[in-house]
Amino acid sequence: MTSWANFGGDLHLDLDAGRARGLGLRAALEDALRTAVRDGRLAAGTRLPSSRALALDLGIARNTIAEAYTQLAAEGWLTSRQGSGTVVAERGPQPAPAAPPPGLRPGPAPRHDLRPGSPDLSRFPRTAWLAAARRALATAPHEAFGYGDPRGRTELRRALAGYLARARGVRTDPERLLICTGYAQGLGLLCAALRDQGLTAVAVEEYGLPPHHAVIAARGLALRPLRLDADGALTPDLARTDAGLAVLTPAHQFPTGVPLRAARRAAAVDWARQTGGYLLEDDYDGEFRYDRHAVGAMQALDPERVVYAGTASKSLAPGLRLAWLALPAELVEPVARHKRLADGQSGATEQLTLAELIDSGGYDRHVRRSRHLLRRRRDRLVQVLAERAPDVRVTGIRAGLHAVLELPATAGTEEELLGRARAAGLALNTLGWSLVAGATPRPGRPPGLVIGYGAPPEHAFEAALDALCRLLAS
Amino acid sequence: MTSWANFGGDLHLDLDAGRARGLGLRAALEDALRTAVRDGRLAAGTRLPSSRALALDLGIARNTIAEAYTQLAAEGWLTSRQGSGTVVAERGPQPAPAAPPPGLRPGPAPRHDLRPGSPDLSRFPRTAWLAAARRALATAPHEAFGYGDPRGRTELRRALAGYLARARGVRTDPERLLICTGYAQGLGLLCAALRDQGLTAVAVEEYGLPPHHAVIAARGLALRPLRLDADGALTPDLARTDAGLAVLTPAHQFPTGVPLRAARRAAAVDWARQTGGYLLEDDYDGEFRYDRHAVGAMQALDPERVVYAGTASKSLAPGLRLAWLALPAELVEPVARHKRLADGQSGATEQLTLAELIDSGGYDRHVRRSRHLLRRRRDRLVQVLAERAPDVRVTGIRAGLHAVLELPATAGTEEELLGRARAAGLALNTLGWSLVAGATPRPGRPPGLVIGYGAPPEHAFEAALDALCRLLAS
Repeated sequence: MTSWANFGGDLHLDLDAGRARGLGLRAALEDALRTAVRDGRLAAGTRLPSSRALALDLGIARNTIAEAYTQLAAEGWLTSRQGSGTVVAERGPQPAPAAPPPGLRPGPAPRHDLRPGSPDLSRFPRTAWLAAARRALATAPHEAFGYGDPRGRTELRRALAGYLARARGVRTDPERLLICTGYAQGLGLLCAALRDQGLTAVAVEEYGLPPHHAVIAARGLALRPLRLDADGALTPDLARTDAGLAVLTPAHQFPTGVPLRAARRAAAVDWARQTGGYLLEDDYDGEFRYDRHAVGAMQALDPERVVYAGTASKSLAPGLRLAWLALPAELVEPVARHKRLADGQSGATEQLTLAELIDSGGYDRHVRRSRHLLRRRRDRLVQVLAERAPDVRVTGIRAGLHAVLELPATAGTEEELLGRARAAGLALNTLGWSLVAGATPRPGRPPGLVIGYGAPPEHAFEAALDALCRLLAS
Repeated sequence: MTSWANFGGDLHLDLDAGRARGLGLRAALEDALRTAVRDGRLAAGTRLPSSRALALDLGIARNTIAEAYTQLAAEGWLTSRQGSGTVVAERGPQPAPAAPPPGLRPGPAPRHDLRPGSPDLSRFPRTAWLAAARRALATAPHEAFGYGDPRGRTELRRALAGYLARARGVRTDPERLLICTGYAQGLGLLCAALRDQGLTAVAVEEYGLPPHHAVIAARGLALRPLRLDADGALTPDLARTDAGLAVLTPAHQFPTGVPLRAARRAAAVDWARQTGGYLLEDDYDGEFRYDRHAVGAMQALDPERVVYAGTASKSLAPGLRLAWLALPAELVEPVARHKRLADGQSGATEQLTLAELIDSGGYDRHVRRSRHLLRRRRDRLVQVLAERAPDVRVTGIRAGLHAVLELPATAGTEEELLGRARAAGLALNTLGWSLVAGATPRPGRPPGLVIGYGAPPEHAFEAALDALCRLLAS
């Protein structure tokens, strides 16, 4: 139903639009009037016809019109003054809805994805996850769905305390665990809590993840790069920095892949003890060790000075946003305070689901399967490169979801390689991309690529390897 | 199997503990040795027996012992020096695991819970939620489980854009929506983004939620209280503050319950336009309006100056940690930037599930049922109080999950009432608790209680009302 109501010039009131959206007659009329005011077709100050007049004009019951006027007046669109009737409220014309902001949505998926940091998303165990969710929600107490402990659900903290001791040699208990929505949040919360205690600078490995460096910088903290060599980060250099926190990846340095050797672990812990500093152990892929029994967590050397951080982003999927911190006793409350300020607590349903998945053994089974698959992929990568790109040195392959390829200088600069890869629809990282701002690249360092062999779906893996070999051969 | 190995004094190596936890022989040995070092039973510098000697002593294959030594050396527990054999690494004795930090876990549930802010958690639609999760996970693309848009899943932003327009008259589109883990996170992200643009002070209603005030203060922003009267917040006073952001609850002021009248809405929007300031519309319970058609969102008056905030905490459950912001075009990227820094993005599985629940009509059905139930409870509260506490004035009851009780001065102070309530196992809030720090209580204001009639499970509601009446009669 459309109508040309005559007030202050012809006005097109389209009630059908609202009706089509399932609105009742009065709601549709309100909608049409709002639209007219927004578009400026009903200018501020315009006097509306009496409800009787408009009722006649539209063929609608008069009290429907009157109710619509009352409603729009309550919302501030119209004003009803004694005597002067109903007029459009003083308000400028509305700007048009803005165009979608650019650069937020991730770009189109590349033809071949060998970027590090993500597992094969096609392997997310949807069925096992749903089954665990069903079991978890069937037994969860009502209070699980309310406001609760900022550290997260006890069910998950209890399950994780056992898992971490068993699988990673972490020394903790449920009271010291805090569930966060991803490692980056945990890093930010720790930085915020320590900043309250006077922290001003954070030591990080000279190669790492720029997004994590941004989280630290956003808390107003300075970054102090730590050199890396064949034994891992030069932790003895910590004493020469003003850092009060050192973020390390001891099990499998990201991205170079070297494990932190015993002497370097000891030096880090001793530094923390002597200076009252803290270590953050980012154990992002500690579950995936191939050549021998996994090296236990550094945290066990001193649970009061080392914060252990684990995540489900590599073992299950990043989209779950599930990670955890095992905290020194004196940091539990400061970090929980910031978690409460940040978002109160993490979501209950996935916490309950992951707890059930761990308790039922499903998590271990998935990790074991993933380990075998990843090891096969790693071996295949090494084999194919040996055949088709013999002058490429593959390093950092004893664990994890990625490898570093050292190329001969003749291969060109990393930027050139990246450009050629893009042109071939092949997504990967360069070693240079991982260099922390302020660190100086090693002179004469050969060009390096960081290859995430965990990311592609199984059916696309060989094609991705082939694309990589063609890039290296070109 | 336990053994008394003779090195540097008798040492009790309990392998059974590890075996009982399902560890292999070597892992159990490693575990026993780690424990011995931790407990200080194996002091730093202690020289361990040769693998042959310990093998004989324990009756374990020698290479198992050797592998365990290698492993523990790699982890930094032992050091193997040429000639001097294997010794316990220099490291002080371990502190005992700390006691659980107090004050983090929410206390025991009260016998009668009439605290505002929570829906009846026993009504969380577990079956509908699981069914929606199953449908959502069956059809979700693989990339849904990866790293994505900091604004959240498009499925949910699309579903919400339609729902908000339909149910709350919000003018937005999926590009302008950002999914956050609860309203408090959204508030914090907005504060951080505006602070980058020079914001220093935030106007809040003089009565509100102290935890939200804490979120604003934690961002280094000053709080400016806005007076309340029968028409809602005195938004004309905004011009006399240095605030660049005003946080309002227009549909149903928390806790007083007065809606923000049309003239006050207009004054707020005009202030924002003239000063370039912003309004945050906290529409925490806008779905629950009883006496007439819900007043539409203030945001529609100017989507470029009003940030609309909605949440699933009242309509479904707080434990889901699902809320959303409808942002002005120029704030989408600044707020999304801070969301990325905070936790990258919200969890994918509940976002997909809520989107499916909305698209399937299940969300609307649940909200409608809740509205009827809440209305019945509200009417019952009013009726019972009229019978048993006639001198109590009930206000703010046209919407929401709570009411304000104005008591005669003879009822005693709010603190006295709170004490008597606690003694009776009855949890509720006082009006004074909600007063923002720095605001001066109105002289001669009668004592007031804030009663959340939405919280108790159905079977416990009458008993809670009875406890309340006994408190008011005493």
